[in-house]
Amino acid sequence: MQQQIKDKYKLLSETARRRGFFWGSFEIYGGLSGFLDLGPLGVGLKRQIEDTWRQFFLQRHGFVEVSTPIITPHKVLEASGHVENFKDSMTECSNCHRRFRADQLVKEATGLETEGMSLEQLGSLLKERHVKCPECGGELGPPQYFMTMFKTSIGPYGEDPAYGRPEAAQGIFVNFRRIFETMREKFPIGIAQVGTVLRNEISPRQGPLRLREFTIMDFELFFDPEEPDCPYLDEVGSEELLIVTEDNRKKGTENATRVEVGDAVKKQVIKAPWAAYFMALSKRFLNQLGVEPHHQRFFEKLPSERAHYSAQTFDHEVRLDRWGWTEVAGFAYRTDYDLRKHMEATGEDLRVFKPYPTPRIRKVRSIKPIHPNIRKIFQEETGRVADLISKDDPERLLRAKKAGQTVRIGSYTVPPDCFDVVEEEAKETGARFLPHVIEPSFGVERLLYATLEYNLTMKEDRLILGLPFNLAPIQASVFPLVNKDGLPKRATEVFETLIANGLRVDYDESGSIGRRYARADEAGVPLGITIDYDTLKDDTVTVRDRDSWNQMRTPIGTLSSTIHTIVKEGFKPSK
Amino acid sequence: MQQQIKDKYKLLSETARRRGFFWGSFEIYGGLSGFLDLGPLGVGLKRQIEDTWRQFFLQRHGFVEVSTPIITPHKVLEASGHVENFKDSMTECSNCHRRFRADQLVKEATGLETEGMSLEQLGSLLKERHVKCPECGGELGPPQYFMTMFKTSIGPYGEDPAYGRPEAAQGIFVNFRRIFETMREKFPIGIAQVGTVLRNEISPRQGPLRLREFTIMDFELFFDPEEPDCPYLDEVGSEELLIVTEDNRKKGTENATRVEVGDAVKKQVIKAPWAAYFMALSKRFLNQLGVEPHHQRFFEKLPSERAHYSAQTFDHEVRLDRWGWTEVAGFAYRTDYDLRKHMEATGEDLRVFKPYPTPRIRKVRSIKPIHPNIRKIFQEETGRVADLISKDDPERLLRAKKAGQTVRIGSYTVPPDCFDVVEEEAKETGARFLPHVIEPSFGVERLLYATLEYNLTMKEDRLILGLPFNLAPIQASVFPLVNKDGLPKRATEVFETLIANGLRVDYDESGSIGRRYARADEAGVPLGITIDYDTLKDDTVTVRDRDSWNQMRTPIGTLSSTIHTIVKEGFKPSK
Repeated sequence: MQQQIKDKYKLLSETARRRGFFWGSFEIYGGLSGFLDLGPLGVGLKRQIEDTWRQFFLQRHGFVEVSTPIITPHKVLEASGHVENFKDSMTECSNCHRRFRADQLVKEATGLETEGMSLEQLGSLLKERHVKCPECGGELGPPQYFMTMFKTSIGPYGEDPAYGRPEAAQGIFVNFRRIFETMREKFPIGIAQVGTVLRNEISPRQGPLRLREFTIMDFELFFDPEEPDCPYLDEVGSEELLIVTEDNRKKGTENATRVEVGDAVKKQVIKAPWAAYFMALSKRFLNQLGVEPHHQRFFEKLPSERAHYSAQTFDHEVRLDRWGWTEVAGFAYRTDYDLRKHMEATGEDLRVFKPYPTPRIRKVRSIKPIHPNIRKIFQEETGRVADLISKDDPERLLRAKKAGQTVRIGSYTVPPDCFDVVEEEAKETGARFLPHVIEPSFGVERLLYATLEYNLTMKEDRLILGLPFNLAPIQASVFPLVNKDGLPKRATEVFETLIANGLRVDYDESGSIGRRYARADEAGVPLGITIDYDTLKDDTVTVRDRDSWNQMRTPIGTLSSTIHTIVKEGFKPSK
Repeated sequence: MQQQIKDKYKLLSETARRRGFFWGSFEIYGGLSGFLDLGPLGVGLKRQIEDTWRQFFLQRHGFVEVSTPIITPHKVLEASGHVENFKDSMTECSNCHRRFRADQLVKEATGLETEGMSLEQLGSLLKERHVKCPECGGELGPPQYFMTMFKTSIGPYGEDPAYGRPEAAQGIFVNFRRIFETMREKFPIGIAQVGTVLRNEISPRQGPLRLREFTIMDFELFFDPEEPDCPYLDEVGSEELLIVTEDNRKKGTENATRVEVGDAVKKQVIKAPWAAYFMALSKRFLNQLGVEPHHQRFFEKLPSERAHYSAQTFDHEVRLDRWGWTEVAGFAYRTDYDLRKHMEATGEDLRVFKPYPTPRIRKVRSIKPIHPNIRKIFQEETGRVADLISKDDPERLLRAKKAGQTVRIGSYTVPPDCFDVVEEEAKETGARFLPHVIEPSFGVERLLYATLEYNLTMKEDRLILGLPFNLAPIQASVFPLVNKDGLPKRATEVFETLIANGLRVDYDESGSIGRRYARADEAGVPLGITIDYDTLKDDTVTVRDRDSWNQMRTPIGTLSSTIHTIVKEGFKPSK
């Protein structure tokens, strides 16, 4: 039934443009690479993907979502290390003066993994392999770094520099204490943000996959590094992941190892149990979007490739027809890097208080000056000497006391009967620690693209977008068979009833019914509901199934429950 | 029952910060005015407000939503007039060099409406009224314009200037044709966008009400100016609006006139019927958020105050405790201004084709050279002469023909038997026109603030946020009575069941049950569900009503339907 599609990217881009999923921005102004518009269906599908993500990762765990500004002051991103580290290697053509990502040119020319290569290495490889300007064939200059944050300034002075945030995470880190407090200090705590990020890519050339402005779904799981266990891990312990490990990569292979999540934690393939749990969820999440498990893998980054804040990173990759293995999510073990940096930069205490199960008693030695004896020797200097004694090192004075020796304190020689060293008990109810962080981070537009590609099918030379009912931006289209004789009015009533029942519904009266069915198939609408002349007589409508093109007849009165049954049990056509 | 609250702004800001609705951004870095963080409850409430708005304005009408970039190239915003017009008057203190909005200082000092005042007028008023620097009392310099868009540049050259969009509308206008096509060219068409906009305000000083980064809900209703009627108008014809009209304002009063929507259109108080319809919906929408009709008014802008693109503008204002009448939405009649500007700038035809009910036949005169006769006179020049004849003015040649006179064409004298003037019929199936636009535009953070303020009540000295069930970010909180004896486990099960039923639910086990109730009241949680020792025996729970503090006992098995009944019929406590 399903036919082979030659170039899914091309087909998908055309369909997406025609049906209103996405297209390049500012088309009438000649376009602007790295920017994407979402049309009505794109906005709808994006929202369903985001909500599905919330169900998988947030709701069940009681994790919360916040929203913080895109514009971020320089000092925040300086503290986080982005001002220093958020940069790409760039080379300029000495002839046409166009600029390109040096690492990408090297990667394309050599097939080598270039993340983490130095400018010198990249420059040498460009020379060795005789890489030329892709536009004019000219000589490429030595690679330089280019800061890939969009720069602006806030307020009327123009001297208060700021950037468009390159990740949503920093808005969470700088707010950690406040959110933690509003959430009644429960711990571990997961804090999420879904929002726009900006990255001033040098030469984005992959349509919807490499954008300068896109939506990220980040969350930060804050946990106690002394209690790193994840209470949900057992639920996914036997879930198998395909992992291209750092070890394998160092051995020169990109073969994926099949490993159960529980084992991956035991064998320390994945260092943090929380990361392992989220990776398993992520596999299930992608599967729900339509990407079968064998088209997914986790690709571990080498130390030289990891972001500056990360102790271990896995990219969650999906195999795409045109682009091969493509990152759609990342799992970074950020340790306490970010909180520590912001704590250092601001002087604010971002640590979390952890009560001991029972208060701990700590023995503390302290010095007690014996004033009458001091006065006998030092007279009017008693106060000063007593003060110096009490600030001295208890251990040293204790040794002197035990040995019965005088000690030299400042310019004074003090006999041992001038002080006592006493041992006292101090009660400690807990300690403060800086949480560690696991960050799952998803690129929404890439998920959207992957979802479309994996739901694309052909049937009798016609394109069908087989989005599942829960993801479909439009769940049912209402069609009056013809555009007269009261059919549009009756169809509008059906349309409004279905909307009132909470369904995502469309109304379409233009063109032949066959053309409308074909259009709905391309738009991924699972059900078509046709109002015809019989409807006016007996109040029944035809329900058509997108995937089988089968039809059934059902009364309008029970249409909502019929749809409910179809979603639950599948489409069973009338005999 | 309800008590007076002295300063709602202060109380609300404190509560919002404590419970996690909102607070100023980058607190640990000393704050940054004009930027707001939304905490977990703020994100939740914002989403409910947006979804309610979609129900009111989009779904029912089949209007669609798109998403376009925040970063917008210079040429787009130059064409739209923003580069020239999006500016504020600024004055700098000659002593401390701080900068302020000149119009705001004048407004505060004089009470005059300053929108539309020239720099000279503002400068004179600052002088006349001896307005000094609010910070140091120094002399203020002459007002200048300051462009209030955030500037940046795209790509590796730094010479491709761009701005953060100051409104979401332009992304709709530049995409009008494509969206119109994907929507099967149905007309009128409504296209919406909900997204972030950026305005580099000079000195924002009103907390959550004047932001440099905020969320806008815009939509553009495109209609045929020759058919301006709104088919939904009758549904709201008798809805009463309070309008401060331009006429009244010109007479020097700000008294609101009470007028029915139908009359407002008939009497041309509101020029565009679509605008009148949306204003009526907006009144109902605000009412649903909790703002009673008598705390709402529509304030018509004077021509000098309107944005550069608008032929008529009404601000929808809400009375706020601290800030007085405050704009939360605007209704602008943008005419064809924007489409025309983008059409001129790009050369793309953005007009819409309108078929005539029946094709129109137009008579067209054309000239037919008679080659044999021409050849007799002009011989080898026949081609050239015939060409000149056919390009001449048909009316002139017709007159010559009728009079039997020769005509001079170029250097040739041509007798009338060398040509015929024939009348032909041309069939025209329709004409192209540029749509006019009505734009309702809502500021989400302001709606959020107004919603909170209007749902704030006191009961026995305790603050209750009386958000209705459908708006509440958390609809029910689940409480184990104590944190032991298996109660948390049972409570977690109830929590998960309610989530699976699609409710927005929270779980809280920290502190005494009284404290938890109080906290939930402040967070606007309509229902509290307590799991106690009886629950373990008989599987019943206590349901507590936020507003009355009444309680009822209900079996867990029917909890979801009990909640459904409460929402529909109100809370009826157990006897």
